[in-house]
Amino acid sequence: MSLFSIAYLGPAGTYAEVAALTWGKILQQTAQAETVLVPCPSIAKALKACQTGKTDFVVVPVENSTEGSVTQTLDTLWQLDGLRIQQALTLPISHALISLAYELAAIETVYSHPQALAQCQLWLEKQLPDVKLIPVNSTAEALQRLAGNTTTAAIASQRSAQMYNLPILAHPINDNPDNCTRFWVLSLQPSPGGNHTSLAFSVPANVPGALVKPLQVLADRGINLSRIESRPTKRSLGDYLFFIDIEAGTDQPNVEMALQEIQQYTETLKTFGSYEILSVTESL
Amino acid sequence: MSLFSIAYLGPAGTYAEVAALTWGKILQQTAQAETVLVPCPSIAKALKACQTGKTDFVVVPVENSTEGSVTQTLDTLWQLDGLRIQQALTLPISHALISLAYELAAIETVYSHPQALAQCQLWLEKQLPDVKLIPVNSTAEALQRLAGNTTTAAIASQRSAQMYNLPILAHPINDNPDNCTRFWVLSLQPSPGGNHTSLAFSVPANVPGALVKPLQVLADRGINLSRIESRPTKRSLGDYLFFIDIEAGTDQPNVEMALQEIQQYTETLKTFGSYEILSVTESL
Repeated sequence: MSLFSIAYLGPAGTYAEVAALTWGKILQQTAQAETVLVPCPSIAKALKACQTGKTDFVVVPVENSTEGSVTQTLDTLWQLDGLRIQQALTLPISHALISLAYELAAIETVYSHPQALAQCQLWLEKQLPDVKLIPVNSTAEALQRLAGNTTTAAIASQRSAQMYNLPILAHPINDNPDNCTRFWVLSLQPSPGGNHTSLAFSVPANVPGALVKPLQVLADRGINLSRIESRPTKRSLGDYLFFIDIEAGTDQPNVEMALQEIQQYTETLKTFGSYEILSVTESL
Repeated sequence: MSLFSIAYLGPAGTYAEVAALTWGKILQQTAQAETVLVPCPSIAKALKACQTGKTDFVVVPVENSTEGSVTQTLDTLWQLDGLRIQQALTLPISHALISLAYELAAIETVYSHPQALAQCQLWLEKQLPDVKLIPVNSTAEALQRLAGNTTTAAIASQRSAQMYNLPILAHPINDNPDNCTRFWVLSLQPSPGGNHTSLAFSVPANVPGALVKPLQVLADRGINLSRIESRPTKRSLGDYLFFIDIEAGTDQPNVEMALQEIQQYTETLKTFGSYEILSVTESL
C-alpha cells in the first residue's frame, strides 16, 4: 500500500484540513493509498513544500463565493514552476460562532481569519455591532486564542469546535447560506485531464486592447471563460497578470490551437493543467 | 471661507490620512477652503459617512502596486449609490519598521495592516524569519500595539513614527522600491470630468463569451483599458462583477456611444465618473 503526504494550511481544524482529508479519502478509494497530512503555517509554505518534493500533494483554497480569489495562492503559483492541478474540490463553508461566553451580549472580541470575518460581516454588524474584530492567520488559530476567556469568541467550523471541545453559540452565521470555497489539489505529476483548464499570462504593458486579444481568441473558438482574475505584476501600477479558467480540456483540438495562438499576444503564458471539479455536498 | 469635511480610514497616522491631507491641501489651493478630517474605523464606514451626507468627501485606497485591489472599497462602492469620483491620487508608500527594541534580533512579534505585511514579505522573511506576524486594522493601530514593549515592532510610515514619538529601526523595508497606492476622492457631487473613467458591471451568468462582448465594444472604438478587476457577486461561485478603468472621459463621443452599447451586454452597469489622476511624488 502506498503512503502519500498532503500539505495544507494548518493547524488542525481549518477548512483547508477538511479539503485535504477529502482528497485523502479519494486517494484511499481510487488508489488504495494511505495518507498523512502535513500542516503548514501559510499557503505559500504549503505550496513550496510540495513544489520542492517534501510532500506528494498540496491542497490550497483558490476562490470563495463571497470573498473572491485567494490572492496568496495565485501570486505564489505564478512564482513557482512545476505544480499541476490534479483536482478541484468545492466545499460548503458554514461558519459557527464559538465561545465560552454565556450569551452574545457578553462578547467583546471576535477572532478569525480575515476571509471568515468578511463572510460573516452582516451577521456581525447586526448581532454584535460593538465588538472588536481581530484577524488571525487561520480559523483554527482563532480557537486557540479563546484560552478560557468568557468575553471572546472565534469564527470557525462546527467540526473544529468539536475538536477543541468548545461550545457553539450560533450557527450558521455566514451571510450567504450558499457560501462555498473551491480548493485545488496540486502535485508535480502531470494533470489527469478534464473539462476545466486553468492558465495565467502577462500581457505587454501599455498596449491598447492587450487583454482583449487573448480573450477574443477563446471566444472565437467557442471556449467559455468561467473566471478571470487580475493580479498586479508587482512591478508598477497598471501592470497585470491574468488568471483564467476555461470550461474545456487542453486535449480538445480547439483549445490546443487557441493556446498556441494566445502565445503571440502574451508575454508569459503558464498552464496549470486540465482537471475535473468535484462538488462535495456534505463537509466532514 | 468654506469648510469641508473628509472621511478616511483612521486613526491618525495611516497612509489614508496622508491622502486625505493631500486632498485638503488641493481644496485649500483651488477653492480657498478649510478642511476637517474625520477618521473612521473601516473603509466601508468612511464611504457610508460620505454617501449619507455626514461628510463632504471621502478618500479611500483603491489599488496598490504590490498587493492589487482593495476589495473592501470595490465591494462597498458597488452596494452604495450616488458617490462619484472627483480625483485620483497616487501616493508613494514607503514602510518603516518601528520598534522600541535595541536591535532586530530582539523582535519577536510584528504588527501591521495585512497589505503592509504583504508588501514587506520578502524583507521580513530575510531579516526576521522567526517572528510572529499579526495583522491589525490599520498601520496606525499597529503602532498603538507597541505600548512600551521592547520585543514587538510595527510596520507603518515614517510620518506616523514621528507622530507617536517612536524610533525607526529600518527604512524603507517594502520589497518593491516603487511601491505606491492609488486613492479615490469621492463625493455626492457630479464628477469634474477628465481622461480616466471608472465603471463596474455584472454580466448574465453562464453565457459563453459574456465578458468578451463589453470588452470588445471598448476595443473596437479604440478605448484603452487600464485595469480590470473581477469580484464575486456573492451569490454563487462563478458569478462575477467587473470593475474597469478606461483611459478616456465620458465626454468623448466614442466613450458615450460605447457605454450605451455596453448596456445591452450587461445586467447592471454603474459609472463612477470621469476624473484626473494626480501623482504625488513626495509624501507629506
